[in-house]
Amino acid sequence: MFRSNNKILLWLNKLSPVQMILFFYFIAVIFSTVLLSLPIAYQDGVEIAFIDVLFVAVSALSVTGLTPVSIVDTFSTTGYMFIVFILQLGAVGIMAIGTFIWIMLGKKIGLRERRLIMTDQNQLKFEGMVRLVKEMIYVLFAIELISTILLSIYYLQYYPLKKAMLHGVFSMISAISNGGFDITGESMLPFKNDYFLQFIVMILIIIGAIGFPVLIEVKEFLFSKSRNFFRFSLFTKLTTVTFLILIIVGAIGIYILDANAFFAGKSWHEVIFYALFQSVTTRSAGLMTVDVSQFTEQNQLFMSFLMFIGASPSSAGGGIRTTTFALVIIFIVTYARGGTSVRLFNREAHEEDLIKAVVVTLLAIAIVYLSLIIILAIEPFSVTKILFEVTSAFGTVGLSLGITAKLSMTSKIILMVLMFIGRVGVITVLFMFKKKRNVGNYHYPKERISIG
Amino acid sequence: MFRSNNKILLWLNKLSPVQMILFFYFIAVIFSTVLLSLPIAYQDGVEIAFIDVLFVAVSALSVTGLTPVSIVDTFSTTGYMFIVFILQLGAVGIMAIGTFIWIMLGKKIGLRERRLIMTDQNQLKFEGMVRLVKEMIYVLFAIELISTILLSIYYLQYYPLKKAMLHGVFSMISAISNGGFDITGESMLPFKNDYFLQFIVMILIIIGAIGFPVLIEVKEFLFSKSRNFFRFSLFTKLTTVTFLILIIVGAIGIYILDANAFFAGKSWHEVIFYALFQSVTTRSAGLMTVDVSQFTEQNQLFMSFLMFIGASPSSAGGGIRTTTFALVIIFIVTYARGGTSVRLFNREAHEEDLIKAVVVTLLAIAIVYLSLIIILAIEPFSVTKILFEVTSAFGTVGLSLGITAKLSMTSKIILMVLMFIGRVGVITVLFMFKKKRNVGNYHYPKERISIG
Ligand SMILES: [K+]
Ligand SMILES: [K+]
Repeated sequence: MFRSNNKILLWLNKLSPVQMILFFYFIAVIFSTVLLSLPIAYQDGVEIAFIDVLFVAVSALSVTGLTPVSIVDTFSTTGYMFIVFILQLGAVGIMAIGTFIWIMLGKKIGLRERRLIMTDQNQLKFEGMVRLVKEMIYVLFAIELISTILLSIYYLQYYPLKKAMLHGVFSMISAISNGGFDITGESMLPFKNDYFLQFIVMILIIIGAIGFPVLIEVKEFLFSKSRNFFRFSLFTKLTTVTFLILIIVGAIGIYILDANAFFAGKSWHEVIFYALFQSVTTRSAGLMTVDVSQFTEQNQLFMSFLMFIGASPSSAGGGIRTTTFALVIIFIVTYARGGTSVRLFNREAHEEDLIKAVVVTLLAIAIVYLSLIIILAIEPFSVTKILFEVTSAFGTVGLSLGITAKLSMTSKIILMVLMFIGRVGVITVLFMFKKKRNVGNYHYPKERISIG
Repeated sequence: MFRSNNKILLWLNKLSPVQMILFFYFIAVIFSTVLLSLPIAYQDGVEIAFIDVLFVAVSALSVTGLTPVSIVDTFSTTGYMFIVFILQLGAVGIMAIGTFIWIMLGKKIGLRERRLIMTDQNQLKFEGMVRLVKEMIYVLFAIELISTILLSIYYLQYYPLKKAMLHGVFSMISAISNGGFDITGESMLPFKNDYFLQFIVMILIIIGAIGFPVLIEVKEFLFSKSRNFFRFSLFTKLTTVTFLILIIVGAIGIYILDANAFFAGKSWHEVIFYALFQSVTTRSAGLMTVDVSQFTEQNQLFMSFLMFIGASPSSAGGGIRTTTFALVIIFIVTYARGGTSVRLFNREAHEEDLIKAVVVTLLAIAIVYLSLIIILAIEPFSVTKILFEVTSAFGTVGLSLGITAKLSMTSKIILMVLMFIGRVGVITVLFMFKKKRNVGNYHYPKERISIG
């Protein structure tokens, strides 16, 4: 027993950090699938295919929210709680949770373990890693507790106590984890006129999608004794600005592309809340106050683009990430300026990061386009419906034009792979099979190549 | 008179090389539009809208081949000859022709003029520029003359002498310029079983699309006295290999995506010729032996991707160009290998070229996606039909799923802009408004940004 255990440890030790993360995600998928396979998770008489159990597990763990079955018609209250648990697991990140337990158990965090978390949360420095994870969990749990209480009380106007609490917990986790699942059967549509609830949910979505490092820095700023001297990191500034610009530009774009259709005849406050909520939700959440199939096709293509970008790094969301998008634009602007660096809050970005952002974007476009062609060859649905589904999975957003349940097993598997890639990041997947060897860095003679 | 003339020269002198190229293209568009506005160009009783005259002019000058009117039902024999002339103008490049005339008139080519040609043909060295243009024209005319005679004789089995000659000239220029226009009314469909003709046309298309520098080097190799010591440039090797790989992979992809549809029940030689011709034509030509609307939608998306790549640089074709595509892949592979340079025929690519290729690709994707959304908002056609049209215009390919004639004026203008950008290249357009100033190259402190 001890010997085989030892063998596993030896095998684990041979893995690169990226491979180990992938291994833990894999374990978490199995665990979640087993959890959702328990009969206790289902309403009486409901049975769903194994591929759909697996799909819901992957969707919840990657906090995407796409589902081939209706959550409210399929799962029991226990099942809801399983989903809440898996969403929590997915949002915080398996590594972070693992480390937290480790710390709780009084163990010291070694260099190797810290490097693991670093890769998972895309942090660049070793120092403060352990502290970061601890603070991350504390901050998250505090926000979750407060918002659950707040939401549960607020839901009392709609539901009796027990149901209000259930909805409070579920919509809190669904929003803050950006999971996007719902137990209303029709997302936020029943609350399309409840602006207060929408406002709270938007705040929670943003907290989940803006990235943990930003939350930590904001907390540090708020509790700092010398606020005037507090300096936010370039990362926090860039990611927050990009995030806010995307929300505003997204809302304006969504309005313009549907001004003569969905938004025709709507009052100004309806326009603002519908457009704003829809824009926020494409960052990663996937909740909706209007059925997205009501929008024009050009708007659906625009939303596909927004979902492709996704949330901020080190957040509960997926996609290429907001900073990647910002760095790609900086990359292009730098080139157009003949190589002159772009000034960002009196700093400039490292070339290495710019190149990484470009590689991520190009690979992501290739992955999305390839998935689109394959699914189109299998399924009878339109290009727009499939592209929307594909970008929704990649951005771990979870919006759908209603085709998820009708897809074949092959298409579902492709979507699961996309959710996985979207969640762990393209770069992580790229380095998945990388060996731990040092490649000789010698050079060949260079020669110019005309490319225009 | 002299003074105002002098003012024009002064104004021209203020332009950057890129701006001057654009200015000359603009003049050529006006010239072509005027030419095609002459009543003599049309069959009796035919009248077409100005926007369509402009569209055919831009389409012919950018050697795209998209047309909102049927050439055979609209233009007279004189009109055909005008189109032949504009295609020739577009293929050789206005700058190259200008220089040629300049040389013929015995003028010396100054540094400034040489720089102009350099930008147009994307050549990197000053030396040999004039010689290159001369040789380019000689080689091209020789090939054109031989192939016209060959085709005219061959067409005698289909048409009487005069018509055979007309078809000989027109299909020669249509193939070698990659213009893709036809006077059969249905492209190459009447010759779908004539493999010899298809073979000749494919050779001509490849000659037009593979890039003049390659042709020149091949000519130099053939006439070289010491062939064993002849060394092809990295550019020629890379562009030729990429070109051939794209044709083969393209043909295989086109076959696979339609194996159970269009290709079902076809004989092996039909499969090979249909798939191969279709793959070659997406490089830039736009001629077809099968109506592309007969292919499956997934195949049409695949062809859109092929058309987006387009032809080789310094050729008659458009798109991001084959070398750009190759360098983007090299860029990604280099990154995945942790920065280790990729060996290319015992050379390696310059980082500057890799970055340029990436910028071109990203901008092109943005341009195509934006055009798609705008046209989708205006027109009643499907995403696939519009994307096909858009990539066809950008790649100056000229294939269409039959919507060109039905488009509104706004969409036609967008397509004209795309043909223009595709022909002159994304980089040229990017530097269009660049001022001639030296930007201070000072740097801000760098700070890492997490992007994964
Ligand atoms: K989501
Ligand atoms: K063409």
